[in-house]
Amino acid sequence: MNAALSDRVAPDWIALDWGTSNLRGWAMRGGEVLATANSTAGMGTLTRAGYADALATLIDGWHVAPGTPVVACGMVGSRQGWCEAPYRAVPCTPMSSQMTPVNDTALNVHIIPGLRQVTPADVMRGEETQIAGFLALNDGWDGVICLPGTHTKWVQVSAGEVISFQTYMTGEMFALLSQASVLRHSVQGDGWDSQAFDNAVEEALTKPEKLAARLFSIRASDLLENTPPDTSRARLSGLLIGAELAASKPYWLGTNIAILGAAETARHYGRALQTQGAAATIADAARMTLAGLTAAYRQMKDTI
Amino acid sequence: MNAALSDRVAPDWIALDWGTSNLRGWAMRGGEVLATANSTAGMGTLTRAGYADALATLIDGWHVAPGTPVVACGMVGSRQGWCEAPYRAVPCTPMSSQMTPVNDTALNVHIIPGLRQVTPADVMRGEETQIAGFLALNDGWDGVICLPGTHTKWVQVSAGEVISFQTYMTGEMFALLSQASVLRHSVQGDGWDSQAFDNAVEEALTKPEKLAARLFSIRASDLLENTPPDTSRARLSGLLIGAELAASKPYWLGTNIAILGAAETARHYGRALQTQGAAATIADAARMTLAGLTAAYRQMKDTI
Repeated sequence: MNAALSDRVAPDWIALDWGTSNLRGWAMRGGEVLATANSTAGMGTLTRAGYADALATLIDGWHVAPGTPVVACGMVGSRQGWCEAPYRAVPCTPMSSQMTPVNDTALNVHIIPGLRQVTPADVMRGEETQIAGFLALNDGWDGVICLPGTHTKWVQVSAGEVISFQTYMTGEMFALLSQASVLRHSVQGDGWDSQAFDNAVEEALTKPEKLAARLFSIRASDLLENTPPDTSRARLSGLLIGAELAASKPYWLGTNIAILGAAETARHYGRALQTQGAAATIADAARMTLAGLTAAYRQMKDTI
Repeated sequence: MNAALSDRVAPDWIALDWGTSNLRGWAMRGGEVLATANSTAGMGTLTRAGYADALATLIDGWHVAPGTPVVACGMVGSRQGWCEAPYRAVPCTPMSSQMTPVNDTALNVHIIPGLRQVTPADVMRGEETQIAGFLALNDGWDGVICLPGTHTKWVQVSAGEVISFQTYMTGEMFALLSQASVLRHSVQGDGWDSQAFDNAVEEALTKPEKLAARLFSIRASDLLENTPPDTSRARLSGLLIGAELAASKPYWLGTNIAILGAAETARHYGRALQTQGAAATIADAARMTLAGLTAAYRQMKDTI
């Protein structure tokens, strides 16, 4: 049951992080968070006609006036999303006043476009908002930003612009190998063997050409030596992150590094980089997303 | 309905290739195949109590006398199989008279043990039988045998013994990435772009440390350049096989190579090796399996 109308949260504007699997909303007054709401109505579960309803359901408990500004980022702007927000080409600032308005709703919804790179071909949607948030909070910052996740991004930032970026499927590979491959029998549980992780990162970085030969050995070590699942799981993660660091070395070597990620994943990346003598600043991804959405809202308000 | 008893196939012995997903049987008279039978009653679908029934169902149409010898290879001999056939340690011949008898059946079932390697830890079950079959048909052959599949094996053979081997998850990775990852949107269909395959093999072998950076570009190229799925699919396969060849180079460089595999996969491996100036003999995996099971049966008959 909803609260009485007078008790309800009444936002000036709404911030949305609308990805493939999840939808997260913030009821905002200026830069202040009045309330948050989450749902599993991600792009992957919706047809184009379903977005307006999914949003209405998400904010059902709030008192939202018609025409309230809504700023959204993520896969909601993809070709299969609510409304395609065409990619902007790098080099460019992570954010511009160029947002895509959505028409089939009584709210004033705008979607932040993703970024594309021609050579090598690459795309991002959502990360540009986190980068803009990080730069809004760290004025004048130059260096390389790592955004670990299902598809980890390494992004070169200079003078407020995204210069180049590169995507790695490390998170998705870990999920597939640990849940759907023969390795699933050997890596269950929540434990963690830091030494096994460090060793695997080192192995992958020292001999990256051997990676393909090392994955099955996780299963064989379990069968022949009863290797504990904590060790196997940390080793799998270390091999994959190590392979990513081997490939992304031209990005991170000898420069400022910031990691924008969820707590555990960001920590693993930070530790892996540390074993290579590279220090990184870690910032919370959700906080950066909200900072970026807030920056976009302010820009939109100034533009309107 | 079964044929009249007098019309039924009456084998001297039965050969079984019993893997994780499939069960394949041959009704044999000496070295002659009287009939074949297939079912999906693989190890993955059975409890220990279910094997005897699965076998009875498979051979239901044949006239099989109690006590008929049955020789089986594959995951049927694993810890989760019908009866564990403990691994033999390399270096050793791919086959010995040491087989594991099964008790809960009226037939005289024997399981061929797999092989294990202590350092680096590795195991095989089923491939040892194909190797034995290949050596039975190619007396005195020395070199390296590649057995491509879900878990591809590279096996060093000398003077009739398996000296060492290494397993690669290339087939399983291709299946997971092409069916369950974000790349699935870009690699559908049956077509094949040989040039894209060759280029990808070359890229992976020249810069194996870059592999992690190349996978997502398959998706990005589709999104930004409408790369055809045939090209993307061949490229994914080429990158993974190329990564395997980079890691297995000490095995295949400058030696005799035989590929025992199913037609299409074996051809891809052969082509990839050819681009590196390495020629390989290709032999059909199912034929080698039967040759190996036949060799095991002859050995068993001599021993009894």
